[in-house]
Amino acid sequence: MREQLTSIKNQHVKDWKKLATKRGREKFNAYLLDGWHLVEEALKSGVTLTALIGTADELAAHDDIVARFDQVYEVTPAILKHVLDTVTPQGIAAVAQLPNHRFQPGVDLKGAWLLLDRVQDPGNVGTMIRTADAAGFAGVVASAQTADLFSPKVVRSMQGSQFHLQLFTGDLRKWIADFKAAGKPVYGTQLNPAAQSFRQVHPGPNFALIMGNEGHGMASDLLAATTTNLYIPMKGAAESLNVAVSAGILMFELNRAALTD
Amino acid sequence: MREQLTSIKNQHVKDWKKLATKRGREKFNAYLLDGWHLVEEALKSGVTLTALIGTADELAAHDDIVARFDQVYEVTPAILKHVLDTVTPQGIAAVAQLPNHRFQPGVDLKGAWLLLDRVQDPGNVGTMIRTADAAGFAGVVASAQTADLFSPKVVRSMQGSQFHLQLFTGDLRKWIADFKAAGKPVYGTQLNPAAQSFRQVHPGPNFALIMGNEGHGMASDLLAATTTNLYIPMKGAAESLNVAVSAGILMFELNRAALTD
Repeated sequence: MREQLTSIKNQHVKDWKKLATKRGREKFNAYLLDGWHLVEEALKSGVTLTALIGTADELAAHDDIVARFDQVYEVTPAILKHVLDTVTPQGIAAVAQLPNHRFQPGVDLKGAWLLLDRVQDPGNVGTMIRTADAAGFAGVVASAQTADLFSPKVVRSMQGSQFHLQLFTGDLRKWIADFKAAGKPVYGTQLNPAAQSFRQVHPGPNFALIMGNEGHGMASDLLAATTTNLYIPMKGAAESLNVAVSAGILMFELNRAALTD
Repeated sequence: MREQLTSIKNQHVKDWKKLATKRGREKFNAYLLDGWHLVEEALKSGVTLTALIGTADELAAHDDIVARFDQVYEVTPAILKHVLDTVTPQGIAAVAQLPNHRFQPGVDLKGAWLLLDRVQDPGNVGTMIRTADAAGFAGVVASAQTADLFSPKVVRSMQGSQFHLQLFTGDLRKWIADFKAAGKPVYGTQLNPAAQSFRQVHPGPNFALIMGNEGHGMASDLLAATTTNLYIPMKGAAESLNVAVSAGILMFELNRAALTD
């Protein structure tokens, strides 16, 4: 079905706009994909897309993709800009179903996992998920106080990695306990007297790595529950690294065996 | 000398506001430091600071630092917000002299150097400089089309690293020629048939690493001039890494010998 919308007061437009908020995403169990790249990645991965929203020009230029949607909405550029709140919208968007990203007791803990403890900046969260994907990680678990994994800014920075790995939101205490009960090491990332250089640690293919809040690091009860804490040796004058850069260095080194040289 | 300013129409306020633009910074040969952390880092490093600008409360709370300035301006929170254009200004700023960051023929090329070829996002540029500092690099050279090294956003992301390493803006072709003439390897970062995994390369303490534009990578004439091009082996589904994350992984591995384990 194809429908033409010209007013931002249309109920569909109002509903899409609500997907910018966590509450709206929960209500509709959906989030927005902005641009052809993400729409194509979603189609490739078999994710359920409930609607395609595009300008007349963009829809006309992509007949083959349009044909794969039951619901197509032709909208004005102004409507798309209103819904997406981006400076230069590409003229196309889609409504995607949220994956089940809650804590599920039966998750297979195989492979490398990234755990995010209250990471606040959506750009950092998205970049870390994208990096985990590139580093061959199996999944990412975000604590409840971490930036919502399907907010527009996180989705933009993930660049489609949500289609390649498993994403969960949950209580990290439970996850850590599960990893440890399964005999898999859980690495924290905070300097303490017993911390080890990340270069000295050579985990097998199954482990978890925890990254903490930008300003405050990891919560102390999580730190206390880790197998080992890691640090990145650096030069004296610098005080720290951006959390997404640290995560990248650690993930590519710890999962090195899984990456083809 | 201490002066009290209450209007955003004051000439000093107008001049400071101009430091947000490249043109303004060139005109006054100065840039702004936002917050006590950067002011203290600058004082420690011996950089010339020509003025301290703060609210009455902040100045009163830091007598010892205030005493180190010849020119102190007490301003309203509104003026500071106007000048700094940050959401939550800390109530303090300083005017710092720009370092000589032009191409200088006599630069000592010792150590590891990061070369930035048209990197556009100021956050990426600042983060890479901060990372280069932590990885023990000697300096960073930005091409003319790279985000200006002293723009407010770059300065915010550098977090004071400009006080720990050398920063230049210049023609990368000349710099590459100089590194090669001195027998130091220059590594490019773009996939080509002859590219090597970054894990296979073990440079000595002296080398240069080039990172390219976020969307387009490195310019082809620069690529052609490198000693070797490097790639980071990654998992199939992911297409790329954020440029600042890639730079972090490469810098910490290539300069590994210089970092204490």
